[in-house]
Amino acid sequence: MPIPEEKQNKERRQRLMDCALDLFIEKGYFNTAIRDIIVKSGYGTGTFYNYFIDKEDILKALLEDFAEQIISGFSEYWTIEKDLYKRFIETKRVTMEIFAKSERLSEIYSRVAGASDPIDQCIKQFEDKLIDFYSNNIEYGIQKGVFDDVPVPPLAHAILATEKFLLYKWVVLRTISKQEMIEMVVSFHETLAKGLLKSK
Amino acid sequence: MPIPEEKQNKERRQRLMDCALDLFIEKGYFNTAIRDIIVKSGYGTGTFYNYFIDKEDILKALLEDFAEQIISGFSEYWTIEKDLYKRFIETKRVTMEIFAKSERLSEIYSRVAGASDPIDQCIKQFEDKLIDFYSNNIEYGIQKGVFDDVPVPPLAHAILATEKFLLYKWVVLRTISKQEMIEMVVSFHETLAKGLLKSK
Repeated sequence: MPIPEEKQNKERRQRLMDCALDLFIEKGYFNTAIRDIIVKSGYGTGTFYNYFIDKEDILKALLEDFAEQIISGFSEYWTIEKDLYKRFIETKRVTMEIFAKSERLSEIYSRVAGASDPIDQCIKQFEDKLIDFYSNNIEYGIQKGVFDDVPVPPLAHAILATEKFLLYKWVVLRTISKQEMIEMVVSFHETLAKGLLKSK
Repeated sequence: MPIPEEKQNKERRQRLMDCALDLFIEKGYFNTAIRDIIVKSGYGTGTFYNYFIDKEDILKALLEDFAEQIISGFSEYWTIEKDLYKRFIETKRVTMEIFAKSERLSEIYSRVAGASDPIDQCIKQFEDKLIDFYSNNIEYGIQKGVFDDVPVPPLAHAILATEKFLLYKWVVLRTISKQEMIEMVVSFHETLAKGLLKSK
């Protein structure tokens, strides 16, 4: 059962999340025990369990915050650029900049996938949030008559998949630079957007 | 140092690979020891090491064979369909059918990524092979004047990323069916191909 938010102190919650992220990066997610997070935070054991149920729960919270950051960065740009075609492409630059700025969260996201069912569920929740958001944006373009009326879920999945894969190549494999990652995502969106544009 | 192929007996090698794949599915890659593979195969320890250096080496061999299967399935279709636009889309159905038919290899591929550096290297080799192949196909369309002269690597990466992500949703998360996976990959390629087609 989720813990009611009104019982929580935001700063304490954030501190526990920061300590967890530090440890996940330093020792790896699987080698970090809840005990380590508690010791690092300087709080008592009871405090931890006022905020989180278990280790997956703190990973879930980290990824939820991350999804919010990505969506709000996107939404800010959204209010500036009104050309839907340009917006479709340029918002991707913004999205990838946020992934790049949150390098440690990006690394955790890239490394833990597929490791266990509870983790897959955390990742799924994070990804579904982004896929829904991407779907809504494409649907908006279709409603406005700018984009062709094509099936949206395959495109929203392909967008997230491409971001995820190129993020992994940058943050885990280190075979491409941050700038290459961003440019590749943008370049892919240029071709995809051209395919989406309503045939005249 | 790789083991010279002329020293090897193909059937024995295949049997070791089949036993390894059975065990990777049954117990998980990480919980399978080389000892388990040897016992299951009925061969002596020395035989195993005539063929493979370590566990990653057998995973690498499984993935190499898998990449060959995918590429040759693709190439067969290639000789039938001459329309480059249709071919770009319909080969994806063929590719995803091969992924689907090799469900166990697909599952291993989807589950082990990101787990350790040597495994990441095996996966990278498998993926680079497919990305190169996809790149060559797009470049062929550009040379023939059918596709626009756009940067190819971002598209080849996006194609593999989308296949990988939807494969994972089918074979690990089981949130989409095999048929949905195939249709989503094909549908994405329809929009992408439209974006690739040379502007008239």
